[in-house]
Formats: sequence, structure tokens, C-alpha cells
Amino acid sequence: MTVELYHGEPGSNSLKVLQAIHEKGVRFDSHYINLSKFEQHEPEFLKINPAGQVPVLVHDGRVVTESTIINEYIDRAFDGPPLRPSDPYDEAQMRIWTKFVDDVFRPSLSYLAWHRVIPGLASRLPEGEFEKRLERIPLKEKRDKWSLAASGGFSSRELETWRHQLKESIDRLENGLDGREWLVAGSFSLADIAMFSMAIGVPMSYPELMNNQRTPNAIGWIARMRARPGVAAALAMPNRNAA
Amino acid sequence: MTVELYHGEPGSNSLKVLQAIHEKGVRFDSHYINLSKFEQHEPEFLKINPAGQVPVLVHDGRVVTESTIINEYIDRAFDGPPLRPSDPYDEAQMRIWTKFVDDVFRPSLSYLAWHRVIPGLASRLPEGEFEKRLERIPLKEKRDKWSLAASGGFSSRELETWRHQLKESIDRLENGLDGREWLVAGSFSLADIAMFSMAIGVPMSYPELMNNQRTPNAIGWIARMRARPGVAAALAMPNRNAA
Repeated sequence: MTVELYHGEPGSNSLKVLQAIHEKGVRFDSHYINLSKFEQHEPEFLKINPAGQVPVLVHDGRVVTESTIINEYIDRAFDGPPLRPSDPYDEAQMRIWTKFVDDVFRPSLSYLAWHRVIPGLASRLPEGEFEKRLERIPLKEKRDKWSLAASGGFSSRELETWRHQLKESIDRLENGLDGREWLVAGSFSLADIAMFSMAIGVPMSYPELMNNQRTPNAIGWIARMRARPGVAAALAMPNRNAA
Repeated sequence: MTVELYHGEPGSNSLKVLQAIHEKGVRFDSHYINLSKFEQHEPEFLKINPAGQVPVLVHDGRVVTESTIINEYIDRAFDGPPLRPSDPYDEAQMRIWTKFVDDVFRPSLSYLAWHRVIPGLASRLPEGEFEKRLERIPLKEKRDKWSLAASGGFSSRELETWRHQLKESIDRLENGLDGREWLVAGSFSLADIAMFSMAIGVPMSYPELMNNQRTPNAIGWIARMRARPGVAAALAMPNRNAA
């Protein structure tokens, strides 16, 4: 059996899958794709995932994409502790959380980060280089968003929506943890994994939204998450962007 | 056991769940919510789903929302023919389709429909009535989009993106059916159900995108889908908007 995981630094969707694979105790070969060098758009990688996105799991030659779908796959295809509640209703509640991360929490974080980071990143590259890199992005929608972000072109309506959604995401996390250790049915699940992969950077990037006073439940839960051996192992994966 | 389904006319996300519940052979009480009268935003319905969205399944008093999540729940919680492939890899491929419908196909269809329909709908209501109805929409993002649609305010960039994504959706369906009767692993699944719920109206609304010449696979598959007793029963549910 071969299990290969293509992933970026332990953050966002890569952290989501790294947590699941470590918590499940699956042995895998790690292939680090350097997102700050746009390696996910290199021809080599596009052969594996034509969408040019990490993470990607390759299990005995079969390619699985999309972090939320990969995590459900990891839970079903491998032995190890279950990462989903056994009751179908609880499982549905878990999916409400993982879908919320995909639909609301992750996009709001990503777009706001692009808005802040991409113009500087584009301007630091040699003349014409950013455009060259853009051309290699296979998904038109993503290409358009990057190009727009680089020129500071997101509308104030869009930015306001994302800020609203980010706050909504944090409030939902805080309320979801009221009187609970974990988000669904009293036990750790893919819901905690998905929310954690996005929430972990918020106390640093948006301290006004997430701090001991405003969101004590979320802060306590982050500490519990970090203390899990699988999550800790995921966070200990190399972060070459930070290097 | 009680199974109650709150749904609109047999189209879009309501048709998605109606197909699954009929194909699975689950007996249920149908509660029709008239979307053209905005009944999904009435206080009565908001008690069941605070997001003000159909469909909603209530099984023995437990509320399940989000059509994609409801369909997975129906498959797991009830006896009847399986609507998911048994192999985890095939199941992941099925979820790639259902996620694509949620992320790309349905939004492109919805926004383009709103752009076409809402201004007329708003102008036919008595002065101030549309604004009153808007205020009752619980999800801010949805409220903003409706308000924008009513004033013809979607940007040409947004409209172009949605048109591109709609064409991409149809092309992906056509290619996905190349040499295959059903989308995943040779058997009918929630992938066919999800794509069908959106594709069924396209030959009528966008005949240039979907017709016998351009998309013979998709047209043949639509006929196969319609011939299934469960899908036929779903389509035969009352459509009070059309009345």
C-alpha cells in the first residue's frame, strides 16, 4: 500500500488533511509543495491535480482531491480511530460544520488575506513575472480573483461581506463550543479538524475577533486541539514559507 | 417514526432531496413551502430552519438542513437501495460531483436566474413590498444578493463568471457521461441526483448550451433519469409556482 500526500505548509486546507491523516495514524509519504513559489501551478504538479490545488492524496495510485472529501475518505478507507460520529444525525451535524468552513469561513479568510498580501507580493516580483505566474493558474475563477486582488480591485461590498462572514464564523465557533469540549456530539471529529485549520491563525491575524475576553470557549478549544498528538504532529510538519 | 420534508416545487435543491427520498422508498409527509410567495422567510418556517431555506428534513423531531447533507443522511439513516457507491474511492468521486453542484453549478444557475427574474418580480409588487420581504431574509449574504439583483446591480465581471461556470458545468456533465450510463462507477448515485436537479431545466432555459447536437450524452442521461420511478415520482410532486 502506498499513501502519498501532496500538501503545503501546515495551514488552511493542507493543515486540515494533515490533522486527519496524523490523527488516524496513517503512514504516508509527504510531498511538500511550496505555495509561495507557486509550485502548485507547475506542469509536474498539474499532472497529478489539473486544478492546481493542494492538498491531494494519492492512495495506491488513485487520486483524491478537495480537502473536505479527502478527510472523509481518510476516515473511511483506513483503520484507526473514527473521525466521524457513528449516529447519522450527528454525522449530518458534523457535515454542516465542514460545509460551513468550505462555504463561509475559508473563503472569507482567503479573500481577506489575498487582499492584504497579493498586491505586495506582485509588486516585489520582477516586471511581468506576476502576470506570467497568473497565466499558469488553471482555474479561471481563481486566476481572475488573484488578478483582481493584485490590483486592489475587490469591491468594498465584497470586502464588507467577507469581514462580516469572518466575524460570523468566529461567533459560530464560540457559540458551538458553549458548554462543550468538541463541536459535535461530545467527541472530536472532522468538524473540529476543519474549523481548527482555519481558526488557528485568527488570534494572531484578527486579535479583536478572537481573544480570551471575547471568545474564551474558542481559545480553550484551540489549546485542547494543540494538545492532541495527531494535531501536534500535523503542526510540526515543515513550514518552509516561514523559513 | 415520523419523516417530514419541507420543500418547494420539484426543482433545484428541493428536487435534489425529493429524488433521493423517493428513490430510497422512504414514506414521508410533504410540506410544500411556496417560494414565489417567500413562505420560506415566514416566522412559522424560521422556527424550523432559522436560515430560511428549503429543503429541510425532520426525522423523529431532529432537523437536518442543506440538501447535499440531507441526501447523505437519507442514504445512511433509512433502509432501501444504496444511493452511494460502496468503494470509498468511488464515494469520494461522487462527492466531487455533489460539491461541484454546490460550489459551481447551482450558484451560476441561481444568480443568472435572479438577475433575469428578480427585477421584474420586484417591480410587479406594490410600492415598498419587495423591501419588506427582503427584510425578512435571515441570511445577510442572501439578502444583499437579492437586493443587488433587484436593482440590476450584479457587475459584468460577476455575470461573466457565472456564464462561464454554467457552460463549464454542462461541459463537465457531458464529458463525465462519455461512454457511461451514470456519472460514477457504473451505477446511479447521489451524483446523478445532484447534477440532474440543476441540469433538468437547462435545455429549456439555455438551449444553446444543451441540445441533441452539442450534448448528446447529457440529453440521453436526462431521459434515463426521467424514466426512473423515484425520479419520476419526485418530478410529479405539485408545482404550485407553475399553476
